[in-house]
Amino acid sequence: MSAVSPITMLISRTVASGSRVLSGSAARTDADVAFLAARTNLVKHRTMASRAVSLDNMNPNFIKLEYAVRGPLVIRAAEIEKELEKGAQKPFKRVIKANIGDAHAMGQVPITFIRQVLACTVLPELLKTSDFPADVKQRACDLMSGLGGGSVGAYSASHGVDMIRQHVAEYIARRDGHPSRWQDVCLSAGASTAIKNCLQLLCNPVDGKPSGVMIPIPQYPLYSASLAEYGLRQVHYYLDEPRGWGLDVGELERSLTDAAKDTAVRAIVVINPGNPTGQVLTRENIEAVIKFAHAHRLFIFADEVYQHNIYAEGSQFHSFKKVLVEMGAPYVNEVELASFMSVSKGYMGECGLRAGWMELVNMQPEVQAHLYKAISAMLCPAVTGQIAIDCVAKPPAPGEPSYDLWLSETTAVLASLKKRARMIVDTFNNMPGFQCNDVQGAMYAFPSIELPPKAIEVAKSKGLAPDVYYAFRLLEETGICIVPGTGFGQRPGTFHFRTTILPQPQLLQEMLDIFKGFHTKFTKEHS
Amino acid sequence: MSAVSPITMLISRTVASGSRVLSGSAARTDADVAFLAARTNLVKHRTMASRAVSLDNMNPNFIKLEYAVRGPLVIRAAEIEKELEKGAQKPFKRVIKANIGDAHAMGQVPITFIRQVLACTVLPELLKTSDFPADVKQRACDLMSGLGGGSVGAYSASHGVDMIRQHVAEYIARRDGHPSRWQDVCLSAGASTAIKNCLQLLCNPVDGKPSGVMIPIPQYPLYSASLAEYGLRQVHYYLDEPRGWGLDVGELERSLTDAAKDTAVRAIVVINPGNPTGQVLTRENIEAVIKFAHAHRLFIFADEVYQHNIYAEGSQFHSFKKVLVEMGAPYVNEVELASFMSVSKGYMGECGLRAGWMELVNMQPEVQAHLYKAISAMLCPAVTGQIAIDCVAKPPAPGEPSYDLWLSETTAVLASLKKRARMIVDTFNNMPGFQCNDVQGAMYAFPSIELPPKAIEVAKSKGLAPDVYYAFRLLEETGICIVPGTGFGQRPGTFHFRTTILPQPQLLQEMLDIFKGFHTKFTKEHS
Repeated sequence: MSAVSPITMLISRTVASGSRVLSGSAARTDADVAFLAARTNLVKHRTMASRAVSLDNMNPNFIKLEYAVRGPLVIRAAEIEKELEKGAQKPFKRVIKANIGDAHAMGQVPITFIRQVLACTVLPELLKTSDFPADVKQRACDLMSGLGGGSVGAYSASHGVDMIRQHVAEYIARRDGHPSRWQDVCLSAGASTAIKNCLQLLCNPVDGKPSGVMIPIPQYPLYSASLAEYGLRQVHYYLDEPRGWGLDVGELERSLTDAAKDTAVRAIVVINPGNPTGQVLTRENIEAVIKFAHAHRLFIFADEVYQHNIYAEGSQFHSFKKVLVEMGAPYVNEVELASFMSVSKGYMGECGLRAGWMELVNMQPEVQAHLYKAISAMLCPAVTGQIAIDCVAKPPAPGEPSYDLWLSETTAVLASLKKRARMIVDTFNNMPGFQCNDVQGAMYAFPSIELPPKAIEVAKSKGLAPDVYYAFRLLEETGICIVPGTGFGQRPGTFHFRTTILPQPQLLQEMLDIFKGFHTKFTKEHS
Repeated sequence: MSAVSPITMLISRTVASGSRVLSGSAARTDADVAFLAARTNLVKHRTMASRAVSLDNMNPNFIKLEYAVRGPLVIRAAEIEKELEKGAQKPFKRVIKANIGDAHAMGQVPITFIRQVLACTVLPELLKTSDFPADVKQRACDLMSGLGGGSVGAYSASHGVDMIRQHVAEYIARRDGHPSRWQDVCLSAGASTAIKNCLQLLCNPVDGKPSGVMIPIPQYPLYSASLAEYGLRQVHYYLDEPRGWGLDVGELERSLTDAAKDTAVRAIVVINPGNPTGQVLTRENIEAVIKFAHAHRLFIFADEVYQHNIYAEGSQFHSFKKVLVEMGAPYVNEVELASFMSVSKGYMGECGLRAGWMELVNMQPEVQAHLYKAISAMLCPAVTGQIAIDCVAKPPAPGEPSYDLWLSETTAVLASLKKRARMIVDTFNNMPGFQCNDVQGAMYAFPSIELPPKAIEVAKSKGLAPDVYYAFRLLEETGICIVPGTGFGQRPGTFHFRTTILPQPQLLQEMLDIFKGFHTKFTKEHS
């Protein structure tokens, strides 16, 4: 399997050849063209020997960085959409974007309460109309009283509006049955921003060794991308696919021991419910991770953005904070933890508003002060997103005018996701060559696929990882856009892909049928 | 003047003394308490010898980083506001926040068109009402047609919605009279994010020398903060205060020559109109900077977020892009440039929406591809902010239903800012000990103040820079929050502060009267 990614290849090939795009596989050439077409007409002007910023002298971490969820496949998918709009003839009529957890883009309807409150704060004259329930108006007024000049157009405090942070702390306290300090809650422009801010705390060598962070394999590529960006080493621990993508402490110990020879291992990332794997950790699992982190003095990144997305019978979400508190001394006071949450997932799916939060637990106060100071230079997360956070942290209560609608909408979204999780797993497991673990939670399935040896050879001859080749073929021939396992990491010699469970039921069924047909054809072609 | 900032001092003193806050000046002690009070009750649990992340092993760049616009003074101002709310007796009834360019917080009213379009996209059922002009409804529909699932809750493309980028390119073309390629326009969560993304391209050593970026002194502290964050060196060039904060190429040459001994100077930042200085560059000035950048192969950061805020007779905004294009070869094809814009400033003042853009000119296509790829890992700027960008890039046209209101609102905002710019300059120049250059543009005045030798001594005895001491006294005694010149940089031995021109006229007059009284008292006390 090539260690070089398609995007690095396409860029370096382009450099080697000036503006001319070298021929390769059909898919690769198309992606090349898509990516660079807009620029080729400028390149002719640009033959000067040296530049202020060039591939030779730019930050090499930006070159290493990869983010498969928005990588060359997705760029190509957008191109295909445009070609279809212009009337191009394809074997399909629409691109199905199963590459990204973007619920609204796949037809999920926004929660009315969130949007009503947001509309009233954006345009306060709406409060004078009779179009909104009393609790919506009251919430909008309460929120505006905490904003500068009452306007969503004023900066908020850098870590979010105090009142909203307080509501988040109350949400956490209700969720866990243990108190949360609102000063330790920091609102952010999505979980990604908060995760990156915390990773940045670690990007210095310690005792002469470069720092590293333990991440699961497979992982959500924000982690690998951000570690590359900050020059941090990835320390891989493998999730146990045959045991439902379980997290095994023996594997954590192996991973740490191997890495510690030349790396200062500083932190461990746990994604629960899992992305891309869909597993939900047991309480015992979480306790074991906390003990491991305590023994090795690791900072825990608890990525808990899918905490509302639990589908499997018997699965339950346990927050790291709750388990930590209930473990008592010495853990409760000594294990450093950041828990991340988002309004992009759950029943909300409000990705476009870019809003999330983190709760910091046991962070050294001086470190937290410096972290907060660094965050303050970015002014504040979008106030519109903060308003959505408020609606999530403090939803309508029973008896309030918006409660019944809110309950029916949120229940319907989660029930439908649960149904789709079941449907996708059952379908893949009924397809020869596929093996798919249960989707206990989150929004994705990550099945393994058997690829015929001939397909692996063809892929290698094209300089592509076999799963990338498979995914490009799938896209070009069916319009289905998934993300190959290479983007998340997988055990060498195994092949996977991630698909979201987000297409609405009818479209999902259609997608699975098309997928089945493609796989049969692909296998036959390469047998 | 102490090189150690108040915040670093308060943190390091706290570390040295455990949770006990050492006594110091009244203001400093209060700030200490404000900043750490919430945490002291936790510190007692936290006496373990070592931690995963501690002051000793955390990223030292986060410790160095300073952002005065939201620094200890501003933290203290927020505390005072809370004390007043709780009924504390003070010599004043309200804090006047003249520290930050936050127009809505100071009473500026949002532009109706922006908010109406935003409300309709947030809650599309509003389109069914008769409460909105036809062009607002049409715009909302057009925008929604470019969003995933028609929802502001779907992720957009990472660099923004194509249609909005196209409208920005059209705006730039109208502004400059020269074409702009929409693919080179990248939308962002405020100008700050885009600036940081571009700075990150540079944070690697070149030829064994650490990289550095030329920044004006005084500068907007986002630059010093970001350079510290990325381990980039600040290369200072001084603006010429006696010549209206002019930009002198001789000084650029001096600065570069001095720095080049041990620094790879990669880029130059120009803020036009100036923040905090309020100067507007002439076309000749801009040509000279472009020639300088070309000669020394520097990337130009053109911070043009105040391009709508021009007040002085005879001043005119010239974009770097326009001047570059009109200079012709070799500059037009060889000088690399990023221009930054924001919806937080101008007549809009929509800071809380976090939206801006950059236009990249002559960036090496491969570098641009890597930059775009790195940005894609952050998913997208808030879609709500992008909608505001669209309204700014494509405002109502003459004859459209919203045009007259839009015109009267925007004209009124800019006329009032012009009046306040005049008022503040005249008042300061009538106060003994103050010297204030004309505010030709932007939203700030940056007067110099004479401080009596005794005040300088007292400040030193408290470990504070004299202007910081002055600003803390002003805050504690009058409730006026300004930012001392130390936060922006100033020639050694001179003292300044930045105040916004944003308080509404009556409040501004009141503020200036109080200021005058304070200064007289302060001077007398220290004579």
